[in-house]
Amino acid sequence: MITLHHLNNSRSQRIIWLLETLNIEYQIKHYQRDKQTNLAPAELKKIHPLGKSPVITDGDKVIAESGLIIEYLCETYGSDKELMGNKENRWDVKYWLHYSEGSLMPLMVMKLVFDKIKAAPKPFFIRPIANAIVDKAMTSYAGPNIAKNIAYIEQHLANNKILGNEYICGTQATAADFQMIFPLEALVAKQKGMAETQPNIYAYVKRIHSQPEYQKALTAGGQYDYA
Amino acid sequence: MITLHHLNNSRSQRIIWLLETLNIEYQIKHYQRDKQTNLAPAELKKIHPLGKSPVITDGDKVIAESGLIIEYLCETYGSDKELMGNKENRWDVKYWLHYSEGSLMPLMVMKLVFDKIKAAPKPFFIRPIANAIVDKAMTSYAGPNIAKNIAYIEQHLANNKILGNEYICGTQATAADFQMIFPLEALVAKQKGMAETQPNIYAYVKRIHSQPEYQKALTAGGQYDYA
Repeated sequence: MITLHHLNNSRSQRIIWLLETLNIEYQIKHYQRDKQTNLAPAELKKIHPLGKSPVITDGDKVIAESGLIIEYLCETYGSDKELMGNKENRWDVKYWLHYSEGSLMPLMVMKLVFDKIKAAPKPFFIRPIANAIVDKAMTSYAGPNIAKNIAYIEQHLANNKILGNEYICGTQATAADFQMIFPLEALVAKQKGMAETQPNIYAYVKRIHSQPEYQKALTAGGQYDYA
Repeated sequence: MITLHHLNNSRSQRIIWLLETLNIEYQIKHYQRDKQTNLAPAELKKIHPLGKSPVITDGDKVIAESGLIIEYLCETYGSDKELMGNKENRWDVKYWLHYSEGSLMPLMVMKLVFDKIKAAPKPFFIRPIANAIVDKAMTSYAGPNIAKNIAYIEQHLANNKILGNEYICGTQATAADFQMIFPLEALVAKQKGMAETQPNIYAYVKRIHSQPEYQKALTAGGQYDYA
């Protein structure tokens, strides 16, 4: 049986949505973030040396990295559903698996680290200098890059709408959706005004959130801030 | 014919090594980083909206994201070479494609951004505060995470040595090597003392650099700081 090692409020939630969609037997082992540091607990290192979540075990196989977990599950247990795409769109489907964690998430994590630096307690006479330094780094690198990526995805979903595609790679869910939902729902939850400025991303996230399998996954995963 | 859109001194160099290893016809379109900002030129946006390198075109296909480019080339043109692994190690091979860009590189890029903040010109009375802020962020997040990842790879290569495996996933090169060479050669080039502290990573990089196909790729790619 598949065991998902699941950290609360993390990139792992999307894997539960996939497991529910595959309609196969699985179990969840729950891990809680440290309340002080917000980091994953050391216990996770027993499963994989890097101690990150999500990670799955399937018999004696240990599979880490979100994109790979999704591909492994889709290929092994979803062969009847074309979750890895078909002859025409298989490279598109795989593209989003790599893009999400390789291009988009690093920028979002960098912004998170900068936001934490700004929010950290520090003497009042240092605060404006710290903020100026962080703002410079944001406006010269992470900020414009995040904006470029959001615009890119919004355009992709706008084109999809014209084509009648409700999912990232067509008229049905593929691996691309399970991978991309996390950064997109995090953006909708954290960036103000996405409903007005990025209506296609906003509508996409709401559409996915209304799916019965997604709702079941929320109950199974426990507290989750992005849905 | 395959065209590699190649940015000087970038993650794209490893794709040339793969193209040389596949021994197929290809051409390189060269792009130079902006001398002031060190960023990729806007021209690259004509190929893919995110304007990044590497990106390849193969007929009317446009493939971006290093891990995907490597998988695409290995699957399409390297079927006789088992570059995507065999029945036993195929998920291991794919793991490194995701790990390299999804886990290791984001940390290395974050360190690069912090180093740039420290090196940027600023008034002398601000410098110590800026350095303290950056050092705090490095010691609390990026620094220990980079160290953990380096130790993880060093251990993997040390285990490999015992097994007689000269490559990341066995006795012959696979997609994993073409993907992982970039962060590892960048570490060896930039971190002092890797020969002593991480002898297996150091030896691995030197071994790859001595390959005739790698050497040919260096000539084809032009100026490259990490080899």
